[in-house]
Amino acid sequence: MNTSFYKAGFCAFSILTLASCGATYTPQPAKEGLEVTPAQNQVMEYVRKVQNQSDESDLAFEIVKSLTVEVGPRIPGSSGDKRAVVWAENKLNELGFDKVYKQAVRVRNWERGFADANVIKPYPQPLVITALGGSIATPESGIEAPVVMFESLEALSKASANEIEGKIVFLNTRMQRHKAGRFYSQVVPNRVNGAVEASKLGASAVIIRSVGTDNSRFAHTGVMRYEDGVTKIPAGAISIADANNLEAMFTGNTEVLLNINMQAKDAGWQTSYNVIGEFTGTEKPNEVVLVSGHLDSWDEGTGALDDGAGVGIATAAATLVKKVVGQPKRTIRVVLFAAEEIGLIGARQYVRDNKDSLKNIIMAGESDFGAGPIYQIDTRFNEAVRSDASELYAELAKIGVVLGNNTTNGGPDVSIMPKLGVPVIALKQDGTYYFDYHHTPNDTLDKINLADITQNQTVWAMITTYMAMSDFDPRPAPEAAP
Amino acid sequence: MNTSFYKAGFCAFSILTLASCGATYTPQPAKEGLEVTPAQNQVMEYVRKVQNQSDESDLAFEIVKSLTVEVGPRIPGSSGDKRAVVWAENKLNELGFDKVYKQAVRVRNWERGFADANVIKPYPQPLVITALGGSIATPESGIEAPVVMFESLEALSKASANEIEGKIVFLNTRMQRHKAGRFYSQVVPNRVNGAVEASKLGASAVIIRSVGTDNSRFAHTGVMRYEDGVTKIPAGAISIADANNLEAMFTGNTEVLLNINMQAKDAGWQTSYNVIGEFTGTEKPNEVVLVSGHLDSWDEGTGALDDGAGVGIATAAATLVKKVVGQPKRTIRVVLFAAEEIGLIGARQYVRDNKDSLKNIIMAGESDFGAGPIYQIDTRFNEAVRSDASELYAELAKIGVVLGNNTTNGGPDVSIMPKLGVPVIALKQDGTYYFDYHHTPNDTLDKINLADITQNQTVWAMITTYMAMSDFDPRPAPEAAP
Repeated sequence: MNTSFYKAGFCAFSILTLASCGATYTPQPAKEGLEVTPAQNQVMEYVRKVQNQSDESDLAFEIVKSLTVEVGPRIPGSSGDKRAVVWAENKLNELGFDKVYKQAVRVRNWERGFADANVIKPYPQPLVITALGGSIATPESGIEAPVVMFESLEALSKASANEIEGKIVFLNTRMQRHKAGRFYSQVVPNRVNGAVEASKLGASAVIIRSVGTDNSRFAHTGVMRYEDGVTKIPAGAISIADANNLEAMFTGNTEVLLNINMQAKDAGWQTSYNVIGEFTGTEKPNEVVLVSGHLDSWDEGTGALDDGAGVGIATAAATLVKKVVGQPKRTIRVVLFAAEEIGLIGARQYVRDNKDSLKNIIMAGESDFGAGPIYQIDTRFNEAVRSDASELYAELAKIGVVLGNNTTNGGPDVSIMPKLGVPVIALKQDGTYYFDYHHTPNDTLDKINLADITQNQTVWAMITTYMAMSDFDPRPAPEAAP
Repeated sequence: MNTSFYKAGFCAFSILTLASCGATYTPQPAKEGLEVTPAQNQVMEYVRKVQNQSDESDLAFEIVKSLTVEVGPRIPGSSGDKRAVVWAENKLNELGFDKVYKQAVRVRNWERGFADANVIKPYPQPLVITALGGSIATPESGIEAPVVMFESLEALSKASANEIEGKIVFLNTRMQRHKAGRFYSQVVPNRVNGAVEASKLGASAVIIRSVGTDNSRFAHTGVMRYEDGVTKIPAGAISIADANNLEAMFTGNTEVLLNINMQAKDAGWQTSYNVIGEFTGTEKPNEVVLVSGHLDSWDEGTGALDDGAGVGIATAAATLVKKVVGQPKRTIRVVLFAAEEIGLIGARQYVRDNKDSLKNIIMAGESDFGAGPIYQIDTRFNEAVRSDASELYAELAKIGVVLGNNTTNGGPDVSIMPKLGVPVIALKQDGTYYFDYHHTPNDTLDKINLADITQNQTVWAMITTYMAMSDFDPRPAPEAAP
């Protein structure tokens, strides 16, 4: 089984980036005496017109509804993923994009299969468990072994092999809610690296307290990785309620004996696709404004927040620009990336396939943090011209979206572009409750608030309008601050 | 297979009772000139002393924690139920009850087994489903049939057999949150009677939108019943998020084709037990103050709210009286009823076994509506003496618990006693969120707020103290208002 693709990366890195904003920057009013040209006036009129019409449109929500009802779960390479690709092509065509095309992406398909966990001693009862993405299976009869609990990966690293040998390691790190999801990056290494670290000490399996902020019995899945030369062991997540329950069984010297049984499997290579739609620019067709989301999702929910929302927001924003202002001057390109969840696989393919034309991307952005309202725009723009878009920033500030730092990597899939010179933006969303649902069966349409997703749509549409209708050119992206 | 026990009753009836309070009654200050005897003063001193110490005690919470961690799910007759009985005996002994004994209750054990549901057309995707308690299984390969959706049982009753024949009936009735859970009684007939009504029209199975108020992917189980002479068909509940998703697939004349597979089974007769603990009265050992909860739970959660909370509250209240005021004058009896969920089976046994001594029960009450704070005391007391306890009512009113009607049937298990002359109380709790968790895997300890369950403990302890230490005697319970 080849699982090397899991090593390449995962969305946690980009979440980390989203969370690590610097101090915010308040846009200044236009300098006194600075001349506003008729063309600039026209651009801002477009922006406001799109804003007004977007505020009245449910399009982003309706797109997510369509995706979740008509397709549902869509793990990369699965039958759901294949239906999602057909759905996306049809949807972009139906919405009137001039060009709709696909970009093949080879992915390893992983199937979750059956999973259960039962405490055998001291207090027999079932626990809710799910396999981590990419995990190998247990033997058919499961693994029955004593559990050793650690409060962190760091605590595990201090353990000795004879404490761990043959046992199930339980990583029980709590995570708090935070508007920008700041604590995700602190806890997610349990999920990604737990199996490797536990295996190095001879563990037979690893289970983690779900990387999540809810108070429920949904286990949170998400990608994990193995390392060459380290024995692969099965890895699962138990729900937070179950983690509390299991933790409470450790009293004195009580042995806690657990049986876990997970029948996940690698289902081989499949072809998935980045699905791309364009409104071709009238004046500068080769200059591209790229807005995106990712089409794949984990398999347990219907992928409404992650990342149906992004698909809906990016697609709706582009569609509204065309609908309200007509054909844009620059090309607007919507990219619905394949296989983000298992390591930005579609994004890497995009960069490879478009390496000669990346220089034509005026700006790229991805929405991939649910549907909470946007409160900040971070950029990675050429510093020398960044303030030339101050009218846009001022307009956004009026609706509570302030200008932040200039060191973002953008959303997950576009995060690999700035180092290639592509300017990016990250629109920071209120993600206080995002990790209540993230990667669980509970990521469904009802978690999206219509007003909030519409606010996202409006902000993306305003920015897309500005970028597609003006001459503002923030290329190239600067080197990131160290 | 004998499932006649499902017909007898179910906790919905008592919830209905809890919800149907009349106008509230505000206690009046003691009449001017009314003499308060030294004995009465002493009783109220006891009440306030118990109140103060209860407010500082986590005992109710700790009991629920012990039950959910050390036993967990305990469907009547299951191995979990048997462990719960042992746990209860040990716990009552450990807490110092003078007498701890059991009362055998014969129950049919039902096992949930595997359950899944998959939309086949128009949009293939899995749905979260659970079997309703008592349902027969589907054939091993499931039932694949078109779905007919109805918004209520009433709408179903107007359908013709040729619309339904061979199909899966989907009862899709919404339920709103309400402080007293008022809407439960309106929606629960879908669960209890849906299979019979659908089968009469030739349906092959019935699925319901979960009887719940959450916005999640937990399906709510609960008892259903069959009727002699009506073909038994499998019955399940899908989660509310899945019901929304399925509903959205009905557009125009689209056929919605579903496969459901549930492998529930009747596991035969088993013996369960009412577990009873007493503090024997010093002055009137034969006069009994009965406080209760039910020991059984559904099998998917750990039964923290339903009814670990009641077990904890009743047990802690009685224990605190003994701890604070010493041996009571009347006997305090804690009854942890068996098999409430499948039709008050333990309560019926209790009444049969104690038929000659029911007349000695001064007051009976059960806590079985979660752990939300109490805001009202309803009674079924002899009207002529009801106001003799006005000092107690006044003390309760000070902490926000007002006197309500005199027509309650009490909590579920005691609801069969008033017609036999036993005075009862119902302490109405804020159940706004109770039906978010009711009968789901998500009924776990973390849903209990320590301050709230402690308020319950205090109110029950105050009332128990008053009843056990005074001469107040509200026997017999009056006939209910029509």
